[in-house]
Amino acid sequence: MNDFAKNALLPNGLRDILPLDAEFEADVVSRVSAHFSAQGYDRVKPPLIEFEDTLLDGVGAAMAKQCFRVMDPVTQKMMGVRPDMTPQVARIARTRLAGSPRPLRLSYAGQVLRVKGSQLRPERQFGQAGIELIGIDCPEADAEVAILAAEALVALGVPGVSIDLSLPTLVPALLSGLNLAEETLRGSLDHKDAAAVLALGGAAAALLSALLQAAGPAERALSLLAGLELPEAAAAERDRLAEVVGLIAAAIPEVTLTIDPVENRGFEYHTGISFTLFGQNISGELGRGGRYLAGGTEPATGATLFLDTVLAALPGPVAVQRAFIPVGTPRALAQALRAQGWVTVAGLQAVADNAAEAKRLGCGHVLMADGVKSVE
Amino acid sequence: MNDFAKNALLPNGLRDILPLDAEFEADVVSRVSAHFSAQGYDRVKPPLIEFEDTLLDGVGAAMAKQCFRVMDPVTQKMMGVRPDMTPQVARIARTRLAGSPRPLRLSYAGQVLRVKGSQLRPERQFGQAGIELIGIDCPEADAEVAILAAEALVALGVPGVSIDLSLPTLVPALLSGLNLAEETLRGSLDHKDAAAVLALGGAAAALLSALLQAAGPAERALSLLAGLELPEAAAAERDRLAEVVGLIAAAIPEVTLTIDPVENRGFEYHTGISFTLFGQNISGELGRGGRYLAGGTEPATGATLFLDTVLAALPGPVAVQRAFIPVGTPRALAQALRAQGWVTVAGLQAVADNAAEAKRLGCGHVLMADGVKSVE
Repeated sequence: MNDFAKNALLPNGLRDILPLDAEFEADVVSRVSAHFSAQGYDRVKPPLIEFEDTLLDGVGAAMAKQCFRVMDPVTQKMMGVRPDMTPQVARIARTRLAGSPRPLRLSYAGQVLRVKGSQLRPERQFGQAGIELIGIDCPEADAEVAILAAEALVALGVPGVSIDLSLPTLVPALLSGLNLAEETLRGSLDHKDAAAVLALGGAAAALLSALLQAAGPAERALSLLAGLELPEAAAAERDRLAEVVGLIAAAIPEVTLTIDPVENRGFEYHTGISFTLFGQNISGELGRGGRYLAGGTEPATGATLFLDTVLAALPGPVAVQRAFIPVGTPRALAQALRAQGWVTVAGLQAVADNAAEAKRLGCGHVLMADGVKSVE
Repeated sequence: MNDFAKNALLPNGLRDILPLDAEFEADVVSRVSAHFSAQGYDRVKPPLIEFEDTLLDGVGAAMAKQCFRVMDPVTQKMMGVRPDMTPQVARIARTRLAGSPRPLRLSYAGQVLRVKGSQLRPERQFGQAGIELIGIDCPEADAEVAILAAEALVALGVPGVSIDLSLPTLVPALLSGLNLAEETLRGSLDHKDAAAVLALGGAAAALLSALLQAAGPAERALSLLAGLELPEAAAAERDRLAEVVGLIAAAIPEVTLTIDPVENRGFEYHTGISFTLFGQNISGELGRGGRYLAGGTEPATGATLFLDTVLAALPGPVAVQRAFIPVGTPRALAQALRAQGWVTVAGLQAVADNAAEAKRLGCGHVLMADGVKSVE
């Protein structure tokens, strides 16, 4: 079979992960999950598929277009394959775990599937691993989820982890405080079009321009923001941001913090401090997070890591030592090798040259009568 | 929300796994995967969804009715959500890994989704973890996959693991050697209806009856089978079975072995020695395996564990020690606790009584100025 045929067998954006990458990915998920559980986040596992109406309810609505639907032959109701896990965890918190004490800390790791890829993420199936901190609205909670997500990346060895904080409620609070409509300005703000903002901003033009200019390293941004005369609600948002940044910087000073005061793309359902995680040697987002209302009513915040991008940001897997076990070797000897951390590959039929067979099967060593020998 | 409403939110056969079970399940998958990889089985990860025609090709055809379909908006071709992983791994072996040396050892672990549950397995989503040994046809290979699967269960702590071996090719070989058709007898054999077998079996009646009676503990079964005058091809099958049983018994004598010489339900695509794994305290199958032809041409054998049943066979998870960390505690102290294996739960806002708060949040301990204290 030629290469085209070999590769043409799977739909766009879906792929097979081969050795050694599949093992590496599983190991990364394990380590991220362990990092979260060590800080009290208990794992939950929602199903891959749910009734469409519950899956796409509330915060789930943002991903509705990305959700494959199928009909449930049992009830004839439509079901959806999950495009995102956060809404499912929020559902669990407000239903199955409604009686659990707050703040409730939950973690998750699993695959999601989307109808179409995007330019930034062509993959239609990818892994998410994340946390939700539910039932409390305070700067310490905002900071905790960002810190945990960033720490997890640092611990994995992602170089140059940075957190870009956003406050998607700031601009609306500012405009509302000045009785201005957001729609005309949203495009200009998204494109960081300073001239258009000045032209269209009306009474808010100066403040919005200042916000645009404040984007960048957190210390400078906060300093600029501190000097702005903001309406009360917007000022409270800004002060909260400053407090959260302070908490994060104190906890993980090695992580670069930046602020973008006007950014809100991808944060449509967020109700407070939000953030995106980046690494220095990778384009694309390593993760996202932020404050929202679970079930429309309960304060929550969380963070999700996108495992495909995280894996791309890491040095690849290191090959493990493999020892070939010739036919007839007592089982106990091979077991003893494995207990020492070797991977063993058993010969199934006798061969003339065990060392050659070991090499053929990708083993750097062979178990002989007098111990393990290198075959290089 | 009442219990009915809480539970009515998910479709039949789909459920949320909550703390501590979700963590436990992830841990079990990890351990099973590690057991397989230690013996040279390299992990692969096929996608959740593929083009329908490749997914349901060859050995995949057996599960066609259980496969949810969706249309790919990119190509307008139909895709299927995988109901089984073995055919995907076989596909990888003959395409992406066509050039890898044989025997090829691959492992996998992931979720599958089925359109309908069954009486034995009402779950429509469950986890599979398994191995494929591809490119060799010999008794040692037949034995290896059964041994590894059984060992994995024993290592997890499943009590009373047993392997029930089948040889779905034996009856066809016998009948073909006697020029008899199988269809009339298949029902009677499946129902172990000795009288019907005698009545309908013609020239094969005596032999088929003997096969029916041989079912049970392996030693006795092999002894009875050894005494039968079988046509050549059937005799070769029987002798192969005896050899494989000998290899398994020598390797894992603690595992009970039984033989059912006429059973073939669920082994429709198998071409040789097959088996089902059971545990003493659980109804339902812990796993299945056996020989087949990958891509219709390459000899292969493998084993799949069904994680939902495996988890049900195990004593449940043990709660981990959790320490509450009052607000204001230096981060380094909490980190030090985690390094010792504690799970830490951070207080987010100051409270009057830290011990009470610890208890409220399910922590058995609280970190005080003078160390970790029990709150019981």
